[in-house]
Amino acid sequence: MVDRWAEKNVDPALFSQELMANASGLVTDEEVDYNPQILLRKAHAATSSMGSATVIIAMLEKNGTLKIASVGDCGLRVLRNGQVIFSTQPQEHYFDCPYQLSSEIIGQTYRDAMVCSLELIEGDTIVMGSDGLFDNVFDQEIVSIIYRIDDVTPAAKALADLASSHSTDTDFDSPYIIEARSRGFDVPLWKKILGKKLTGGKPDDITVIVGRVVSLPNDSRA
Amino acid sequence: MVDRWAEKNVDPALFSQELMANASGLVTDEEVDYNPQILLRKAHAATSSMGSATVIIAMLEKNGTLKIASVGDCGLRVLRNGQVIFSTQPQEHYFDCPYQLSSEIIGQTYRDAMVCSLELIEGDTIVMGSDGLFDNVFDQEIVSIIYRIDDVTPAAKALADLASSHSTDTDFDSPYIIEARSRGFDVPLWKKILGKKLTGGKPDDITVIVGRVVSLPNDSRA
Repeated sequence: MVDRWAEKNVDPALFSQELMANASGLVTDEEVDYNPQILLRKAHAATSSMGSATVIIAMLEKNGTLKIASVGDCGLRVLRNGQVIFSTQPQEHYFDCPYQLSSEIIGQTYRDAMVCSLELIEGDTIVMGSDGLFDNVFDQEIVSIIYRIDDVTPAAKALADLASSHSTDTDFDSPYIIEARSRGFDVPLWKKILGKKLTGGKPDDITVIVGRVVSLPNDSRA
Repeated sequence: MVDRWAEKNVDPALFSQELMANASGLVTDEEVDYNPQILLRKAHAATSSMGSATVIIAMLEKNGTLKIASVGDCGLRVLRNGQVIFSTQPQEHYFDCPYQLSSEIIGQTYRDAMVCSLELIEGDTIVMGSDGLFDNVFDQEIVSIIYRIDDVTPAAKALADLASSHSTDTDFDSPYIIEARSRGFDVPLWKKILGKKLTGGKPDDITVIVGRVVSLPNDSRA
């Protein structure tokens, strides 16, 4: 979809940038009331740029509840005790065509969002990103990096660097290409005869955010 | 863990059966107040059988909020528009050793549960099961069956049958065995030389529950 906007001489970055700027400005809006789906609705309505974008919003409340709304194939992982204990799933029309909020009537709306929330505890690490991260980096690699690099800023940088390096590695068996093969995509027959298989990363925009729950009010669930 | 209870002449089914019977009896408990994590705590405290079990509890509120608490490698998927839009992740100490509630002090408690909630809409299908389902059946197969068999009871039966058939198929490349290979498990070297690779389903207890959201009160998010 992003490619198609570029063909029409529309900078595909404008819509998502304005959408996120609007969302940021509306975080404390009274009507939003810490509901990420309402935040999506209001931010989308306020966006006037042409274009479309997948989007994920996560809001962490003081009591440790992480509220998530997602349209498309951005993703979020929560890491606890050295493992991924929570993961969002992409929504798409068909392979590689994700749900998107759009300036056009044909796109999805906040009503199509996957909306959920999760109880976090101290020490939890949140990794959010665009499909450029999750199509190129396995969850197991994310776990390794997060537990090797304690500080969140260099960890996010290391994840983005790894995604970027995998994305242009034509020999890498990426999550994206494994999914493609499982959907029946393959190299042309003549390459198959030569023993070639579909491999490689997925060149794409890469956005990574890493956060950690440092402290919470006293646990009231005891 | 289940195997180890059998070695001690403890019927490994007793603990999980009593735990679930207790949970069922406590669903409307005032103190539980539709919080699945509190339900886990109270059901666990009321269980006197020896043994241990992985457990998942999901409670659907009238407004469409599905509340989930999970300890270990049971799982839950939500299907919407022909795709899995939500999936839980297993928690484990190491490969094949899941978190468990136990009669012994060494086990996990309700505090170790992954607790989340999800906004459902009309038409959503919920598939819950033990690891015997998700270790033997791919999400894509679950989607196929749910959209081929409209009624939930025969759909659950078909999923259990498929899991059972895959579990004893020594040639099947199961989700379990793909995970095992990705963790570095392999056939012995002499088999490798003969071109063999680790394959097969995972014989295990199989539990499947399928539910569908038929109607909800009028959507108030508009």
